[in-house]
Amino acid sequence: MAAEIVNPRTAGGADTAGRPQRNVNDLERNGDGLDPAFALHRGGKMAVQATVPVRDTADLSLAYTPGVAKVCSAIADQPELVHDYTWKSQVVAVVTDGTAVLGLGDIGAEASLPVMEGKAILFKQFGDVDAVPLALGTTDTDEIVETVVRLAPSFGGVNLEDISAPRCFEIERRLQERLDIPVFHDDQHGTAVVTLAALRNAAKLTDRSLGQLRAVISGAGAAGVAIARILVEAGIGDVAVCDRKGVVSQDRADLTDVKREVAGFTNKSGLTGSLEDAMKGADVFVGVSGGTVAESAVASMAPDALIFAMANPDPEIHPEVAHRYAAVVATGRSDFPNQINNVLAFPGIFAGALKVRASRITEGMKLAAAEALAAVVADELSADRVIPSPFDERVAPAVSAAVAAAARAEGVARR
Amino acid sequence: MAAEIVNPRTAGGADTAGRPQRNVNDLERNGDGLDPAFALHRGGKMAVQATVPVRDTADLSLAYTPGVAKVCSAIADQPELVHDYTWKSQVVAVVTDGTAVLGLGDIGAEASLPVMEGKAILFKQFGDVDAVPLALGTTDTDEIVETVVRLAPSFGGVNLEDISAPRCFEIERRLQERLDIPVFHDDQHGTAVVTLAALRNAAKLTDRSLGQLRAVISGAGAAGVAIARILVEAGIGDVAVCDRKGVVSQDRADLTDVKREVAGFTNKSGLTGSLEDAMKGADVFVGVSGGTVAESAVASMAPDALIFAMANPDPEIHPEVAHRYAAVVATGRSDFPNQINNVLAFPGIFAGALKVRASRITEGMKLAAAEALAAVVADELSADRVIPSPFDERVAPAVSAAVAAAARAEGVARR
Repeated sequence: MAAEIVNPRTAGGADTAGRPQRNVNDLERNGDGLDPAFALHRGGKMAVQATVPVRDTADLSLAYTPGVAKVCSAIADQPELVHDYTWKSQVVAVVTDGTAVLGLGDIGAEASLPVMEGKAILFKQFGDVDAVPLALGTTDTDEIVETVVRLAPSFGGVNLEDISAPRCFEIERRLQERLDIPVFHDDQHGTAVVTLAALRNAAKLTDRSLGQLRAVISGAGAAGVAIARILVEAGIGDVAVCDRKGVVSQDRADLTDVKREVAGFTNKSGLTGSLEDAMKGADVFVGVSGGTVAESAVASMAPDALIFAMANPDPEIHPEVAHRYAAVVATGRSDFPNQINNVLAFPGIFAGALKVRASRITEGMKLAAAEALAAVVADELSADRVIPSPFDERVAPAVSAAVAAAARAEGVARR
Repeated sequence: MAAEIVNPRTAGGADTAGRPQRNVNDLERNGDGLDPAFALHRGGKMAVQATVPVRDTADLSLAYTPGVAKVCSAIADQPELVHDYTWKSQVVAVVTDGTAVLGLGDIGAEASLPVMEGKAILFKQFGDVDAVPLALGTTDTDEIVETVVRLAPSFGGVNLEDISAPRCFEIERRLQERLDIPVFHDDQHGTAVVTLAALRNAAKLTDRSLGQLRAVISGAGAAGVAIARILVEAGIGDVAVCDRKGVVSQDRADLTDVKREVAGFTNKSGLTGSLEDAMKGADVFVGVSGGTVAESAVASMAPDALIFAMANPDPEIHPEVAHRYAAVVATGRSDFPNQINNVLAFPGIFAGALKVRASRITEGMKLAAAEALAAVVADELSADRVIPSPFDERVAPAVSAAVAAAARAEGVARR
């Protein structure tokens, strides 16, 4: 606006009173200058903007008092009008407690904010969905649930992010029970949708049906459990999930509630033993665990194996090794082909759900998202392109349309 | 982005599947068309925007993984860096429970959202402060306090809005005790700052010191209590506050805790009786109550009375009547001169507090804001201009600078 109000975004670190610029820590330094990641993050990565003019008294009297009063009264009389006359149906809360941030673990609410802002701008960039980062100063399950329930009137959806397992499962389930807006833990379902999409195309490329495939998932955290669920729903022949102790099977006595549930709907063939045991003859490896898998185990997989080694920054199986045995290799990294990147899913999924004011995101909507995402690749399908680029502009519209249609088909759409 | 994702803001009510446009209710109709307030509110009044580019993989790897990880780690190591590398110090939560919205009363969280969005865009337009509307689905004092405490890591300040008295006092006090960021109930302090600014100029215009004035405030709710406090702090000679039962005085047995406190710091001259009794010989009338004051009471005020009849839409004393007796008349309406409008205060106050990362907004910062706001009028001072227009671009920078300087002087600034 005017000279005296200084936007920290544009002012850099300079103090407006002319005092010396703040010291740059070693953390932030890169050679003689500021590390480019720090330079980019200075002042944050997002802002709010008005979408209506406030230039004069006439504008003000429509957008604010007295004009706003009749809009408020109308919503009080007909609550569903909140979707028409506020940004509610356009805005998603990105909620975290900072306990499972990237590979960094429990770094706390404030330290997680750069990731949540990043998520928010990806929502905007790729889905035209507004999103607000809400890093909560509590890790208590009950408190997180109650807080989000109280915030729900202001939002059209809730994206849970980087909340550690197993609390993330309970938090999501309880919020879904209490709220009539979509609640979606992206670390679970975003990853699952993109994995399934890539696997659909990889199967197609190697002339197999999903039912012919036996998959092994390394990792029984948020992502592993959700991937197992969506692969089973999509009709993968058999799925075995492994944690650090080996195959999650019903005969194990050390399982959490969630893993016991996983043991119930996976592992039809009754495998036991280690990850390496399970990999013998398997068609698909999905890594969401970190750690390293021995090359001998990779070599023991079935011919034309499909290897998705998604740990970041170090894939469980290096692509160079994987390519010795596999027909298709995918990772979580952008510097190899076939990046399994959640940004391919969550913007379109929320855009579609919000468009039809869905009350929830059903399994059918996720399956539809995966199918639509896979279909974007179409004729470009090759071993190095089983999944589109995040910058493919067809992705979000395709996913959004499929999710909206599925929501209507499943009866959870409200318009 | 692309064709299939439709922004409700630009799409109007048309359904993208080509189905008929939703019916317009009688509420929304104005003659043959949509009422202009409803037309303007369609899809809400605000959006989020990215302030950094996300055009390609290189951008993505800085703004999101893997680049974001080092910024998160740095904040985990040095928590104060959250102010440098996120939007925290730029963003205010606009928190309400929807219990005292405009003159509409307790209309609930969702129906209050248009006002909260309006507030958010005024923050942006006038103070370049980002703000997020958070209408909470609870009216329980403890729950509101706990919710805001948990949200605090993500925000640089909290603007409480349209929460009914007396809960608003306790909520603000408890949040101020618990948080190290500014917590400011605008219905109280914004109104108080602008009232004091106008009163300063009105006294100057009529050649009186603040100490020479005796003021009567009609209304002992959020605004009335805060105005009483700031007028006493600014050195007004005497201040009497009246509720529906008359002067709030220490001999009354029916006072709430807050009113008992008010009785303690006001009414030095020991007035009792009705509002009309208190107005006899008073120099200043401040109306924040609604209702109507009899012309005979107005006529009984001292010569050169200063009348601020701020109820909306119907001033307690109509300006036409007030002008028969008063040297200066102000209202809350934009269609009369001297509008006492909070937008003159809150954007600059928060901009100044955020600029220096103040831990709170002190009484001294509010007094400095009022003084700076009054000073903007300068040579243009006249009976019809004791306060600047909300669209005077000098206002927010002047208020911001004064508030920042006061924060430093009072030791609550953190940079």
